[in-house]
Amino acid sequence: MLDTLFRPKSVAVIGASSKELSIGNRIIKNLIDFGFKGAIYPINPKADEIRGLKAYKSILDCPENIDVVHMVIPAQFVPQAVGDCGKKGVKHIIINSGGFSETGPEGEAIEKDFLAQAQKYGIRMFGPNCQGIINSDPAIRAYCNFTFTKPDPGFISIVALSGGVAELIHQGFSEMGVGTRIYASNGNACDVTIPEIIRYLGDDDGTRVIVTYVEGLRDPATFMEVAQEVAARKPVLAMKAGRTQEGAQAAASHTGGLAREDIATDLIFKKAGVLTFMDEGELIQAAAAFASQPIPRGNRVGIITNTGGPAVIATDVLVAAGLEIPPLSAKTKALLTEKLYLEASVSNPVDVLATGTAEHYRACMDAMMADEQFDGIFINFVTPFFVDNESIAREMVAVSQQQKKPIVCNLMTDKRQWTEVVRILQEGGVPCYSLPGAAARAMTALVRYHKIRSREIGELPNFADTDPAQGEEIIGRARATGRRNLTAAEVYEILSAYNIPVADWRLAANAAEAEKAAAAIGYPVVVKADAPSIVHKSDIGGVVVDLPDGPAVREAVAQMEKNLAAADLRFFIQQYLPGGLELIMGAKAEEGLGHTVMFGLGGIYVEIMQDVSFNLTPVTSTEAQEMLSAIKGAPLLRGVRGQKGVEQARLRELIQRLSQLVTDLPAIREMDLNPIIAYEDRVFVVDARISL
Amino acid sequence: MLDTLFRPKSVAVIGASSKELSIGNRIIKNLIDFGFKGAIYPINPKADEIRGLKAYKSILDCPENIDVVHMVIPAQFVPQAVGDCGKKGVKHIIINSGGFSETGPEGEAIEKDFLAQAQKYGIRMFGPNCQGIINSDPAIRAYCNFTFTKPDPGFISIVALSGGVAELIHQGFSEMGVGTRIYASNGNACDVTIPEIIRYLGDDDGTRVIVTYVEGLRDPATFMEVAQEVAARKPVLAMKAGRTQEGAQAAASHTGGLAREDIATDLIFKKAGVLTFMDEGELIQAAAAFASQPIPRGNRVGIITNTGGPAVIATDVLVAAGLEIPPLSAKTKALLTEKLYLEASVSNPVDVLATGTAEHYRACMDAMMADEQFDGIFINFVTPFFVDNESIAREMVAVSQQQKKPIVCNLMTDKRQWTEVVRILQEGGVPCYSLPGAAARAMTALVRYHKIRSREIGELPNFADTDPAQGEEIIGRARATGRRNLTAAEVYEILSAYNIPVADWRLAANAAEAEKAAAAIGYPVVVKADAPSIVHKSDIGGVVVDLPDGPAVREAVAQMEKNLAAADLRFFIQQYLPGGLELIMGAKAEEGLGHTVMFGLGGIYVEIMQDVSFNLTPVTSTEAQEMLSAIKGAPLLRGVRGQKGVEQARLRELIQRLSQLVTDLPAIREMDLNPIIAYEDRVFVVDARISL
Repeated sequence: MLDTLFRPKSVAVIGASSKELSIGNRIIKNLIDFGFKGAIYPINPKADEIRGLKAYKSILDCPENIDVVHMVIPAQFVPQAVGDCGKKGVKHIIINSGGFSETGPEGEAIEKDFLAQAQKYGIRMFGPNCQGIINSDPAIRAYCNFTFTKPDPGFISIVALSGGVAELIHQGFSEMGVGTRIYASNGNACDVTIPEIIRYLGDDDGTRVIVTYVEGLRDPATFMEVAQEVAARKPVLAMKAGRTQEGAQAAASHTGGLAREDIATDLIFKKAGVLTFMDEGELIQAAAAFASQPIPRGNRVGIITNTGGPAVIATDVLVAAGLEIPPLSAKTKALLTEKLYLEASVSNPVDVLATGTAEHYRACMDAMMADEQFDGIFINFVTPFFVDNESIAREMVAVSQQQKKPIVCNLMTDKRQWTEVVRILQEGGVPCYSLPGAAARAMTALVRYHKIRSREIGELPNFADTDPAQGEEIIGRARATGRRNLTAAEVYEILSAYNIPVADWRLAANAAEAEKAAAAIGYPVVVKADAPSIVHKSDIGGVVVDLPDGPAVREAVAQMEKNLAAADLRFFIQQYLPGGLELIMGAKAEEGLGHTVMFGLGGIYVEIMQDVSFNLTPVTSTEAQEMLSAIKGAPLLRGVRGQKGVEQARLRELIQRLSQLVTDLPAIREMDLNPIIAYEDRVFVVDARISL
Repeated sequence: MLDTLFRPKSVAVIGASSKELSIGNRIIKNLIDFGFKGAIYPINPKADEIRGLKAYKSILDCPENIDVVHMVIPAQFVPQAVGDCGKKGVKHIIINSGGFSETGPEGEAIEKDFLAQAQKYGIRMFGPNCQGIINSDPAIRAYCNFTFTKPDPGFISIVALSGGVAELIHQGFSEMGVGTRIYASNGNACDVTIPEIIRYLGDDDGTRVIVTYVEGLRDPATFMEVAQEVAARKPVLAMKAGRTQEGAQAAASHTGGLAREDIATDLIFKKAGVLTFMDEGELIQAAAAFASQPIPRGNRVGIITNTGGPAVIATDVLVAAGLEIPPLSAKTKALLTEKLYLEASVSNPVDVLATGTAEHYRACMDAMMADEQFDGIFINFVTPFFVDNESIAREMVAVSQQQKKPIVCNLMTDKRQWTEVVRILQEGGVPCYSLPGAAARAMTALVRYHKIRSREIGELPNFADTDPAQGEEIIGRARATGRRNLTAAEVYEILSAYNIPVADWRLAANAAEAEKAAAAIGYPVVVKADAPSIVHKSDIGGVVVDLPDGPAVREAVAQMEKNLAAADLRFFIQQYLPGGLELIMGAKAEEGLGHTVMFGLGGIYVEIMQDVSFNLTPVTSTEAQEMLSAIKGAPLLRGVRGQKGVEQARLRELIQRLSQLVTDLPAIREMDLNPIIAYEDRVFVVDARISL
């Protein structure tokens, strides 16, 4: 569907201008300069020619079919022009002009107008308020864009709403001398969406790696679906900005959206297998490695260097990211001891010395490629004047092109002096960096993607012993009375409908009933005030724990009746569970996308240490286990200092039951199981809240 | 003293060669190409001229005094040549050759030999096994080095043992178009040391910022002293590598040193006021800002951009680093609303739009420079083809040169197309970056240095109620018997000599004495087995807590007598302190430099969460408070969830008493106070260990 947009045979520019410094002129210049393989039609009611091309009064006058039309005209003229394009049979329109939904209700109305026209004629709209697209495929050479970075052909495609950041990333590749393929920056994205473009790039054989930038996902569910599908086939690298409150505000102010910090985007990336980056430089550098290097089969890196210190820096970065720097095998050691200089350091890192020759580098690379010990090679290459650096570069290219294991290279040189070395490496597709840390992080990204591709998704059991209908009924009842918080009894009923184990409980209307209930449960017990009007029970003396006998229960009830003068007051009597490990779980609805599920250690750990982990519904068994392992206090679950641990299978099941519960009952806005008390072989929810 | 080394009037090269690809030739070429202002003397017994310069058979034949001699000859000839230089009255020798202490005992002997010669004649030696120095001062232009990066004159000086990383950093500045001043890479550093060079650079008016890289400090105390003194006057930026075990090994392998992970280097940097970096790119980028920008007076940043997304990224980075992005004052807002385009976003970030002109940028910069709300300005500047980008660049330079508040600029451009813009900004000293995150982190570094310069050092009380003599006596006694671990009784005596509050205790030889001791202390008590041969008491049943009465004490002693058949077994009876907050403190000797002191929450917090903080002796009051605040669990000290906190003044005092104790008694290798039980108004050490 988007093929015509990205591989147009003809492009017209409505609003083409003969003014040198106008966008309507620059797009034509860019198409010409970039060597567009199709026809270019300037549309201008007053000019006869623009930049040497015949201009037409109207799109309707063009002699041929038009694949893509640029519109560089004031917003109010756009709906009419879209109608004209419809009559002409145009397939795609890129609206570069602004003045639409990003400006407020008036612009929004115009956007609706032209969209109606487009739908009528089956035109797909790109933008508005956008830069456009670029395709560097030598068969196409479409620069449908008014910016100035002219890419070499390559294998990286870039897609983002934000023109500024898409451009920034594009410039980053250009500065590295790394080519790119398709570039798409669609501004307001009123029709063609980011997920749609990602799907197209997933199918585009010339695209080896997809890079995207988001400030927030408009349609998270579709993004997730598409990203999951595409990321299984080729690496999708993404960065999310607007992470801080101030950043989210800045994002809202330039997109006309709402300021919203979210954690869900990171979880979506993770679940979909998208490689996430916190730093735009790291994203760019990683993409450059993916563009030419194979995916490693493990995390073990061999390091070759001709100067010491930078290899130390690289080692630190690799190891800190969880990669391994294994020793050389005996065979490799023997081989290199023979081939390298006597003074060379034959371990990992291998130091071939500044005087190391192309043969030395080649011997090291060949040995590491053959050695089962290694999954990738990090090279640090300073270009001393006294060796044949061009030959060293050529050997690297030769080994890289075998595509056996990935290579990254930290190239320490003066690019103005060693132009030939730089050219050989760039054209040969060896990803080169100016800093060892940068090269090491690129290798780290390759390994991260290996892990994504080889990960177990885990199972998603559908617990049959659940009763969603009962859950719906309880929620329906609460909604009917306009309540947003369920009572404790309602919450426990829902938990029971999902077979979530709770500490034994009874409801009581007064002291006598309470005592009876307590006796039935068995002492010691907890008494909690229960009324829809009371949310934070413990803050107002509505919870009394460890009551040993009947008189104590009666006393507690009497005290609450006196202090909490709620008309709807009842008493919740519950088994008291001392000892055990205090845990919490929770779920929170995410707009346009199921729920986030949270797990952590309770009490002070969550309040002070914020030691919690998250995932998105539906949570698979592997993800549930990851949530348990991800907290810093995970050793407590396994048992420490002679204390017994907790049976983790029960916790995984509890997380998955919670996941199923909120998935079945999407009306639940927020749900907390806090605390959960876990023993070696049992687990109980002790308190819970649900809000709608 | 080092002035002659860095500002030589004459340089001779012993081992000068007419072979193009030799170091002995390249140094002469570099001196000539760089425009050295002094005389150059090639020394070669066989050549008459080298690179057009008259060559001399021997250093003794040179017609003039020689300030600096390079030696590029095999190691074994060096001692003799140094002797010759001595006779000639040479001031400094740079030994580029290797083959000395880095290779083993033989080389080490040669190093000793030539050092003896040098000392005899008062020559200061630089290296051996080193690159050399560069001074780009137009009055000097000394390129006494065989590498190839030719710096423009600038204000950044670089010093490191490692030639590879010094070169890497140097290339980084060159790639950014930022000049440098003095470069010094001294390899084995057998005589002239890094601290000595840092002191020289501190006094060098042309050096505004000093950059260094270390893999380990050889003489930590001197480094600390010098860095502290220099960092108070100008920024000292440092990176430490070899942080991981593997990195430390790699460092050891290329320096011939010992593999050693340490945390002390970071603490030394912090205490000395050195700005530490974990990433070499960040270090380089920060230095570029320090080179031309004033130090901000606070952490509040105004952001000006002409495209949205990159400002969002910058905002995230700044805020995450603790900087503030305050709103515009009403006055600034009114002013800019009047001056900018109607559609411009007049908040912080200010978006002047891609069409924003030089006047618009200037209005924003002027307003933020005048607005008390801001301490620095972040500019994001993409160069659209339709505005006068050169004028915008010129306005930035003009404002930057006022030196009122620091400016950093993320320049989004194609450097090949916008050469004039790049030239204006570079020559005008506006620090420019290719990524918003990089520019933001440079601003962050400026603010970090502001905080260092304005920090309170705090007080260092000398507790007069201490008895170091008693401590020494106890330690002397233990040493006399060859023991490395003190007994519990000895430990408590030392604590008592330093007035460190401990839970009340008595020693007992048998059950009867134990019961008597317990009665004197008051029940409940703890009984601990005490024998020099027993270290981890609790692991072997040597600790029983909460004993309520005499029979329980007798029973515990009987059990230990049965289980722990140590000949030297005694019993340590101690007050049992339930409740309270469990804390730990510790101290550990650092080679060549006092002790590190540690503080943390006890039990699971330290074991699982590793929630601890460190500092170096002597710990000032401010540093002690920082140690309390630095742990994640700090809110527990202040009191949470209705629980009372701990009087922090008592903890600060305890940390400072511990600091004084280990400073007075340097024989202590390791000391633990674990646990310490803290209540609202009291604090007790409950268990402690000391090893020598």
